[in-house]
Amino acid sequence: MGVTKKILVIPGDGIGQEVTAWGKKVLETIAANYKHTFTFDEGIMGHVAIEATGDPLPEETLNKARQSDAILFGAIGHAKYDNDPTLKVRPEQGLLKIRKELGLYANLRPIKLFDDLLQASSIKPEILQGADILFFRELTGDVYFGEKKRSDDRTTASDLMIYHRYEVERIARRAYEAARTRRKKLCSVDKANVLEASRLWREVVQEIAKEYPDVETEHMFIDNAAMQLIKDPKRFDVVVTGNLFGDILTDEASQIAGSMGMLASASVGDRVGFYEPIHGSAHDITGKGIANPLASILSAALLLDISFGLKEESQRVIRAVDATLRQGFRTMDIANKHTPNDCVLGTDAMGTQVLK
Amino acid sequence: MGVTKKILVIPGDGIGQEVTAWGKKVLETIAANYKHTFTFDEGIMGHVAIEATGDPLPEETLNKARQSDAILFGAIGHAKYDNDPTLKVRPEQGLLKIRKELGLYANLRPIKLFDDLLQASSIKPEILQGADILFFRELTGDVYFGEKKRSDDRTTASDLMIYHRYEVERIARRAYEAARTRRKKLCSVDKANVLEASRLWREVVQEIAKEYPDVETEHMFIDNAAMQLIKDPKRFDVVVTGNLFGDILTDEASQIAGSMGMLASASVGDRVGFYEPIHGSAHDITGKGIANPLASILSAALLLDISFGLKEESQRVIRAVDATLRQGFRTMDIANKHTPNDCVLGTDAMGTQVLK
Ligand SMILES: CC(C)[C@H](C(=O)O)[C@@H](O)C(=O)O
Ligand SMILES: CC(C)[C@H](C(=O)O)[C@@H](O)C(=O)O
Repeated sequence: MGVTKKILVIPGDGIGQEVTAWGKKVLETIAANYKHTFTFDEGIMGHVAIEATGDPLPEETLNKARQSDAILFGAIGHAKYDNDPTLKVRPEQGLLKIRKELGLYANLRPIKLFDDLLQASSIKPEILQGADILFFRELTGDVYFGEKKRSDDRTTASDLMIYHRYEVERIARRAYEAARTRRKKLCSVDKANVLEASRLWREVVQEIAKEYPDVETEHMFIDNAAMQLIKDPKRFDVVVTGNLFGDILTDEASQIAGSMGMLASASVGDRVGFYEPIHGSAHDITGKGIANPLASILSAALLLDISFGLKEESQRVIRAVDATLRQGFRTMDIANKHTPNDCVLGTDAMGTQVLK
Repeated sequence: MGVTKKILVIPGDGIGQEVTAWGKKVLETIAANYKHTFTFDEGIMGHVAIEATGDPLPEETLNKARQSDAILFGAIGHAKYDNDPTLKVRPEQGLLKIRKELGLYANLRPIKLFDDLLQASSIKPEILQGADILFFRELTGDVYFGEKKRSDDRTTASDLMIYHRYEVERIARRAYEAARTRRKKLCSVDKANVLEASRLWREVVQEIAKEYPDVETEHMFIDNAAMQLIKDPKRFDVVVTGNLFGDILTDEASQIAGSMGMLASASVGDRVGFYEPIHGSAHDITGKGIANPLASILSAALLLDISFGLKEESQRVIRAVDATLRQGFRTMDIANKHTPNDCVLGTDAMGTQVLK
């Protein structure tokens, strides 16, 4: 018996448009092959939404999001805002607001290397081989959402880094539950030697740890973690950390997977799930048709698994990506200069290969 | 004509004691060979100071620091405090306080690989070869020094991430001046798409950039920078960033230099300079006699160069380290499992080799 689900697609900015088209096509193909009924709607967010409505997250998009069973998102951001830090309305506010409004407090980022990309990374193959990390990044707290201030004379600016006990508890529990189904190791990352918010974080994780005596807990400072991740990625299983540290570590960890263009993430909370590539809007390559669609396709795989519980379908997508790589097909970002046999494709040709 | 200088040695905690002994010996040897008069005093700070006086930075140490021409520091921290985030008096407070009291607002961390360590890193040699980065980390502002709060019921904790215009200006100028003497590229790292403090940071750097039209300026988000640093370290020349982001990026960058045990840093402000390895107190290897003394020795080299203007003497120390590595001598942290010819030494034997 097939399932019936409503999916909202939010392509967003830059290459978001190009890659999300392929995530969607993969979902359509899965629906057709497995006799599910997926209905799609589309919403705007980010720079495109500001241009169209003045609002980075229009009410209409938010309403559609609330009524959907899962959301497939692309990317957000535009150079115009990066170059002018004084602009008040900014694309990223749309993404931050939807995370907050939908209560998407846990951002899951699985980092696993496809065997065929072992050479694509700047890290040595023997360091990478076998690395398999699942990040839990807290997504609705921290310095991202604490009060922001600018003095009247504009010479002083501040953001409040703040955590509440319940925020740490719920993400820690999710991370421990996941660790139980994996190699039973959890590393919590903070800066408790300097930050009060981190000291609360550590206290709470130490408490929750007692509920999971079968999981081995380690606490690490963020500076050390940023180093260990490159030095010895295999030492990590599940990593749980705050919003800001998670943002930094997961982007860094993209080098373990060979490329940013390969990584998907799932943002979940109490209801609807939100799936997105971890790469950004990449305006420098927008419109050139060379963006890597695999992260969006793998986001679709995460969506099938986590939001719809369709494990077999999700695995099918991952196997298709694996097979495509095995045949030597690459987008520019994951091509290896030293393996001239690789066949470098554009976005659409790559997407088509995966669909096959 | 030799110079006469007062140097304060603060070994601090853990391996700080073992490695600083070698930084000091190198300074003594340089003084003898070049007919300088260096007088040494010693001060306590960190966990050892808490044990002795209850205060992580006793007045006496601070007074000695104020009266010296340069300070050679080891490391700080102790597992006891890491495991108990509720302790009020903490070793790190000593380090943070001395940075603030001496106005050491600019932390310089040169990242350069010694050719003989090309194999010691987890990153591929072809990615590393030729990488040469100079970090300027702001050291007396940011979330490190903003107000810390804990609610009465202890369920909410916060730290204020705050920057003032003058703090950004002075570190940016120092970084631009250095870029002028190098490859004339400056990358400023922030999170201006989310943080107000970062937007101020970016505005000010954009302004200062106008005074240095001969230097090419780039602005990068911290998440992207953490990724690019591993993907393509050669793209960076001078990097300037805030206290927290600098803490993370420079530890991560240690992988570019082959090991944390190789990296020295200089903290400078308007007067006395403060020199320290970037590695920590490493209690797990304390007392075993296996810590790498090279970061402390290279800190001494930085001290000679920056605080005393003794360029020739500083280069002499760096050449001695280079020669020691070329002869195949390694401490455990930089030994290469795949080159069995390396000769693995303990702290003292390694120090002795450099002195030769
Ligand atoms: C675009 C930006 C606001 C966002 C973040 O920092 O969370 C992005 O970097 C991410 O990781 O999803
Ligand atoms: C020990 C700690 C307070 C310190 C810091 O975070 O500044 C250390 O990590 C460093 O980089 O010097």
